[in-house]
Amino acid sequence: MANQKQIKFGAALHGVGGNVSGWRHPEVEADASVNFELYKKWLQIAEEGKLDFIFIADGLYINEKSIPHFLNRFEPIALLSALASQSRNIGLVGTLSTTYSEPFNVARQFGTIDKISGGRAGWNIVTSPLEGTSSNFNNKEHPEHDLRYEIAAEYLEVTRGLWDSWEDDAFVRDKETGVFFDPAKLHALNHEGRFFSVKGPLNIARSPQGQPVIFQAGSSEVGKNFASKEADAIFTGHETIEEAVRFYNDIKERAASFGRSPDDVLVFPGIGPIVGETEEEAERKYREVAELVTIEKALDHLGRFFEHHDFSRYPLDEPFPDIGDLGKNSFQSGTDKIKADAKANNWTLREVALRAATRRSEFIGTPTQVADLIQQWFEGGAADGFILFEAVPRGLEDFVRLVVPILRERGLFRTEYESGTLRGNLGLPIPENRYTQARAEAAQPTAN
Amino acid sequence: MANQKQIKFGAALHGVGGNVSGWRHPEVEADASVNFELYKKWLQIAEEGKLDFIFIADGLYINEKSIPHFLNRFEPIALLSALASQSRNIGLVGTLSTTYSEPFNVARQFGTIDKISGGRAGWNIVTSPLEGTSSNFNNKEHPEHDLRYEIAAEYLEVTRGLWDSWEDDAFVRDKETGVFFDPAKLHALNHEGRFFSVKGPLNIARSPQGQPVIFQAGSSEVGKNFASKEADAIFTGHETIEEAVRFYNDIKERAASFGRSPDDVLVFPGIGPIVGETEEEAERKYREVAELVTIEKALDHLGRFFEHHDFSRYPLDEPFPDIGDLGKNSFQSGTDKIKADAKANNWTLREVALRAATRRSEFIGTPTQVADLIQQWFEGGAADGFILFEAVPRGLEDFVRLVVPILRERGLFRTEYESGTLRGNLGLPIPENRYTQARAEAAQPTAN
Ligand SMILES: Cc1cc2nc3c(=O)[nH]c(=O)nc-3n(C[C@H](O)[C@H](O)[C@H](O)COP(=O)(O)O)c2cc1C
Ligand SMILES: Cc1cc2nc3c(=O)[nH]c(=O)nc-3n(C[C@H](O)[C@H](O)[C@H](O)COP(=O)(O)O)c2cc1C
Repeated sequence: MANQKQIKFGAALHGVGGNVSGWRHPEVEADASVNFELYKKWLQIAEEGKLDFIFIADGLYINEKSIPHFLNRFEPIALLSALASQSRNIGLVGTLSTTYSEPFNVARQFGTIDKISGGRAGWNIVTSPLEGTSSNFNNKEHPEHDLRYEIAAEYLEVTRGLWDSWEDDAFVRDKETGVFFDPAKLHALNHEGRFFSVKGPLNIARSPQGQPVIFQAGSSEVGKNFASKEADAIFTGHETIEEAVRFYNDIKERAASFGRSPDDVLVFPGIGPIVGETEEEAERKYREVAELVTIEKALDHLGRFFEHHDFSRYPLDEPFPDIGDLGKNSFQSGTDKIKADAKANNWTLREVALRAATRRSEFIGTPTQVADLIQQWFEGGAADGFILFEAVPRGLEDFVRLVVPILRERGLFRTEYESGTLRGNLGLPIPENRYTQARAEAAQPTAN
Repeated sequence: MANQKQIKFGAALHGVGGNVSGWRHPEVEADASVNFELYKKWLQIAEEGKLDFIFIADGLYINEKSIPHFLNRFEPIALLSALASQSRNIGLVGTLSTTYSEPFNVARQFGTIDKISGGRAGWNIVTSPLEGTSSNFNNKEHPEHDLRYEIAAEYLEVTRGLWDSWEDDAFVRDKETGVFFDPAKLHALNHEGRFFSVKGPLNIARSPQGQPVIFQAGSSEVGKNFASKEADAIFTGHETIEEAVRFYNDIKERAASFGRSPDDVLVFPGIGPIVGETEEEAERKYREVAELVTIEKALDHLGRFFEHHDFSRYPLDEPFPDIGDLGKNSFQSGTDKIKADAKANNWTLREVALRAATRRSEFIGTPTQVADLIQQWFEGGAADGFILFEAVPRGLEDFVRLVVPILRERGLFRTEYESGTLRGNLGLPIPENRYTQARAEAAQPTAN
């Protein structure tokens, strides 16, 4: 049992549990997305449950139709830093877009969180799906979908180079001689690429985990390639275990094709578990939140994925309208799937909108049922871990209190953190500093 | 005494006390600039002393000649956020450059710190003095000095506009009706200017202090105009009270000329107080740190202000060399002053370098002597408050323990925080949301 492979868990802290109208539930604090005391509480629940990390999602464009908890929410760097000093072991993962920021600034910010937290930072790379985002950034042309991933790849290359600016033993700090650092262990990056020119060095050194953990959350073809080639982990979403297994194998095979060990890219499907004493109670919890969603809100929510398209102009009870390529340049994998599912099942617009907005997952039932299903996905090769969304109020709390102990009993989940770093807990290798490695390789006598 | 005007204090947390070689002092933790536990300790000392704020300086370019504690240090947004959740009343002020960042991102980050801290954020606007900075940001042309301030002014205009996106009572959150916010109280900025186009709205609302406090730290002509016109406070540095009084009056007059109340721009000279039981002890403390500085380090330190100019090529004991306009495009006010002082006093390069690196201020002596001098500057019209640099190890601790109680006894400094916000403690007005104000003005019956 001690050597049994362990499930990894992240907890997405949204601000508000449940769906787009979850804030209306009587047990929900409707201001949760800007209530730091609540974030602290969730952090504590997650850390007491020994989960691997918390996750803060993000976006850079809103309009009056956006989901309530997107309208007014904390920026991830600032929020994660504030949470870093309130925790000891749990990982701190946040979204930041490579399309509308500067690698030098972002490398420093994640580097700082990583250092302050003792090696617990993680960065979920996204490319800003919404075209409207460019209106907040000088109307710089919004790069098209695949180009955004090319930019992301070079951006990450730069950031990683900057993070290695200082070798781990560069700082001598000899008070007698006055030598503060060894100049041979300070490295300017001198990157000159297609999208970025960044000289460096960075003015912060590495943390105990070497570099922050890289997550990626896009499931388009280019997104999957990017994750398999570059990331430490990928977030995804699936309705069935079959679909999830296919995706899992796909990612691992791509990783191998890029010369990586399949173990170096962890696959995290997102699930929104709902547990009740009985199946009926769990169902009731789901319904209580699902029924809060009006069709108008569901249409707004659906519209956002398609560049804030106005779906209210179509008849509700006719087949999902033909909207051409809309969505391809934003949330590509998500919108492709919505269209394909609608067609395959001949769903009406109403059905599509309500399904998307009320997001019912398989993981509903008694604690044992939910634990069984998680075990089945994990052992069936569908997941290395799960990213937990709060599908109903106190969903996270219930999961940690009721499901986690069952998984623990089965030897599938830790009783104590193995490490003080996120890489340590996820079982990911600590990347050696590239210059230290090169130095070691140069020193190696080669057989010739 | 209750109504006596009060001195304001900020504490600059450097990482390492003293000068460029301060880290060599036996009592200093040489890794202080990346030691979060120490930052927490200083924060606590400052807050127990009821100081108004802590301050984190910053820069975006280093090379191997940079000051040790600049080489490897925390990024201000992340550090301030981490400190926000460790404090209750003290202000959290940090530097961020308007030349190499995006207003939408920065507005969100300071907005988040402001919200998490309950209204305690402050932003020290700088324009990135060092030309080398551009090499870390795609070699975008480093704008020349005065242009940087024009960009800064528009940047601040955008940021302030974004901060007002949501009126304070915009969020209705009515669970019954499902109305989350009042759309009439959400405002897109639609800014189209010379340097920035930013549509908005921002996805975070205002804090209890309305908007973060704006500091500015440049003393060139354009710097002074910018501060007097736009900022809530200005950081500066002076060697004599006469010089400080002239500067103070200059700023207040400029503020008036821009139609502002002189009380709306606070002037904070930086001082590095050194207190001892006796004058001799204080002198000894100064010398202990000053003597750590070698002439080589002093030349490197001096060079940084002049675009990392190599001063080691000039004879040390001849008059300060003629270096033409060097420095004008970087730290303009500082480098102008170094040149002028060198000329007026006929100082050698060695003298100039050692003076700059060992920065001796007037504020050295017994607690009573230092308190007297502070009172004299304050009552003599040289300062509204002071930004404290740690000139010797434990300088902040000594100041809070020994000098603050004397000022308190004299009725010149608070015994308790007046407010939970930085604006409240600094006595600055809370800016009303521009749209709320416009609405109120429109509703006012006009006499005609
Ligand atoms: C668990 C999970 C978390 C995500 N978090 C974010 C996020 O914070 N911000 C975002 O813009 N997209 C997020 N996404 C969406 C994707 O990152 C991505 O933007 C979108 O799917 C477009 O990528 P694609 O075109 O490769 O599919 C998330 C997706 C998943 C499954
Ligand atoms: C108390 C104080 C703090 C300062 N902090 C910073 C800082 O954090 N970063 C920076 O680049 N400059 C800092 N400066 C320097 C000025 O902000 C400014 O960059 C420099 O003087 C150039 O401005 P000027 O050309 O208007 O003189 C500081 C100055 C003072 C007096």
